[in-house]
Amino acid sequence: MTTFEKLSINTATIKKASLAQALEHTAAAGLSHIGLWRDKVAEVGLDTAVEMVKASGLTVSSLCRGGFLTAADAPGQATALADNKAAILEAGALGAAEIIMVVGGLPDFSVSPGAVDGGGAATALAGGKGKDLVLARQRVADRLGELVPFALDHGVRLALEPLHPMYAADRAVLSTLGQALDLAAPHPAAAVGVVVDTFHLWWDPYLREQIARAGEQGRIASYQVCDFNLPIAADALLSRGFMGDGVIDFAQISQWVADAGYDGVVEVEIFNEDIWALPYASVVESVKARYAELVAPHLR
Amino acid sequence: MTTFEKLSINTATIKKASLAQALEHTAAAGLSHIGLWRDKVAEVGLDTAVEMVKASGLTVSSLCRGGFLTAADAPGQATALADNKAAILEAGALGAAEIIMVVGGLPDFSVSPGAVDGGGAATALAGGKGKDLVLARQRVADRLGELVPFALDHGVRLALEPLHPMYAADRAVLSTLGQALDLAAPHPAAAVGVVVDTFHLWWDPYLREQIARAGEQGRIASYQVCDFNLPIAADALLSRGFMGDGVIDFAQISQWVADAGYDGVVEVEIFNEDIWALPYASVVESVKARYAELVAPHLR
Repeated sequence: MTTFEKLSINTATIKKASLAQALEHTAAAGLSHIGLWRDKVAEVGLDTAVEMVKASGLTVSSLCRGGFLTAADAPGQATALADNKAAILEAGALGAAEIIMVVGGLPDFSVSPGAVDGGGAATALAGGKGKDLVLARQRVADRLGELVPFALDHGVRLALEPLHPMYAADRAVLSTLGQALDLAAPHPAAAVGVVVDTFHLWWDPYLREQIARAGEQGRIASYQVCDFNLPIAADALLSRGFMGDGVIDFAQISQWVADAGYDGVVEVEIFNEDIWALPYASVVESVKARYAELVAPHLR
Repeated sequence: MTTFEKLSINTATIKKASLAQALEHTAAAGLSHIGLWRDKVAEVGLDTAVEMVKASGLTVSSLCRGGFLTAADAPGQATALADNKAAILEAGALGAAEIIMVVGGLPDFSVSPGAVDGGGAATALAGGKGKDLVLARQRVADRLGELVPFALDHGVRLALEPLHPMYAADRAVLSTLGQALDLAAPHPAAAVGVVVDTFHLWWDPYLREQIARAGEQGRIASYQVCDFNLPIAADALLSRGFMGDGVIDFAQISQWVADAGYDGVVEVEIFNEDIWALPYASVVESVKARYAELVAPHLR
């Protein structure tokens, strides 16, 4: 196994690159995988994107993102289901086995499902009726149950991504790995997996046990790495950094993921204004260097 | 019972007030309790502070703060123990039954123990050797065990405050109520309690069960309320707001706290630049109004 065999660049890390540029720089760096956001696919259209990915020789490690399942009203719920089914079809066409699910925030505060991280602002609905977090979480469970048969039919797994509790109100009422596994529990592992993202989960006192639990169940759908920078950026969404620039102990978490039996792709997804301003090739080289130093030695 | 019988103003909410002004405005508003920060006590000296509190007729609901127990070196650990013993003595002298414990962050990133929230910046030590979160948490458990006999001797309870996971690296490696109860478990409830602060805990998917567990064990030492504002303030420490201005469902959490049998003081502690700039009397009146509308109806 070469050092970079399992490394994948998520397009959010080089957010300003076009799909063509992202594919080109990832392949030119000798990598085999890329994680795509749907906005990059939409820019060229699905059919063209499929052709471009095929021509690049890269595999799509995940498609980001489905989710936003917390709408309290019937039209909002119908729209969410339709959008998620479209996302599942896109993932299938692109050969992505996993669709990353960001489940959505409180109805009153949730960002628009189409908003790309780093670009979308929370929009509060009038009335303030949607602060019931228990109910919002129940709606996620309900919608997930409705999507599972469709996902199974199309061979795409719904990869539930717990987000840092900073984002519980506006992006994801799913906040810990344990909660994600509880939400996944009624469904087969082939239909519902979980994402282990170091930025979102590093602080969790029960992370080791929950990673082990996820591994035992065969539910680790993706291991995503980037650092948690301090001080927290003025826009808290953009407080991610290259591995090594923040507070996370990658040796420890990567070892836990390896011990849990995960030997899949490791995706690097960084939202950071300073990094977005760098040349794409330089970003990819930095990712490779940090990955080789801090992550790869602790994987299988 | 009158509406405001259990309401306490924490001096951090009117951060720029002197101790004399804080006592005066709290008493003038018809309240019976005040939560003190140690810097306010230090400004006048302990003996004078004790006299001033006595003259005000107020009781001290809690003293903030002890903690910062994660030092990796022997001198740092000895300093932390000495400082915590001093804090326990101060609490005893002021008649505060609870000392709020903010346990400290990762050694490489923790703020200075003396830093007042909203004023202290994280200081990274050279070397980056202190990112092991598991080890930092073990050190907290070790230091806590060393402090318990002293706290018991002086009739002051160590009230462990889990902080929002945003602050896990620089302020508290204690991040959930469940973790706080696990940390408290080896010690009697008279020695070690827990703080339920809505700002820090509202997002926790297992909050209801853990509040019930804390109640069964008689460990709820303080119920602190303020809102979680969105968007998160540029300085994430200052993203607190008056109840009703943010995302938190105070009816739900207050009901859980009441159901757990807690009928003690409810402290309002808000770090917010805009609120700090308001006249003290106006802040106290706003706190009363929001408390009466959003919190008090759901308590016993």
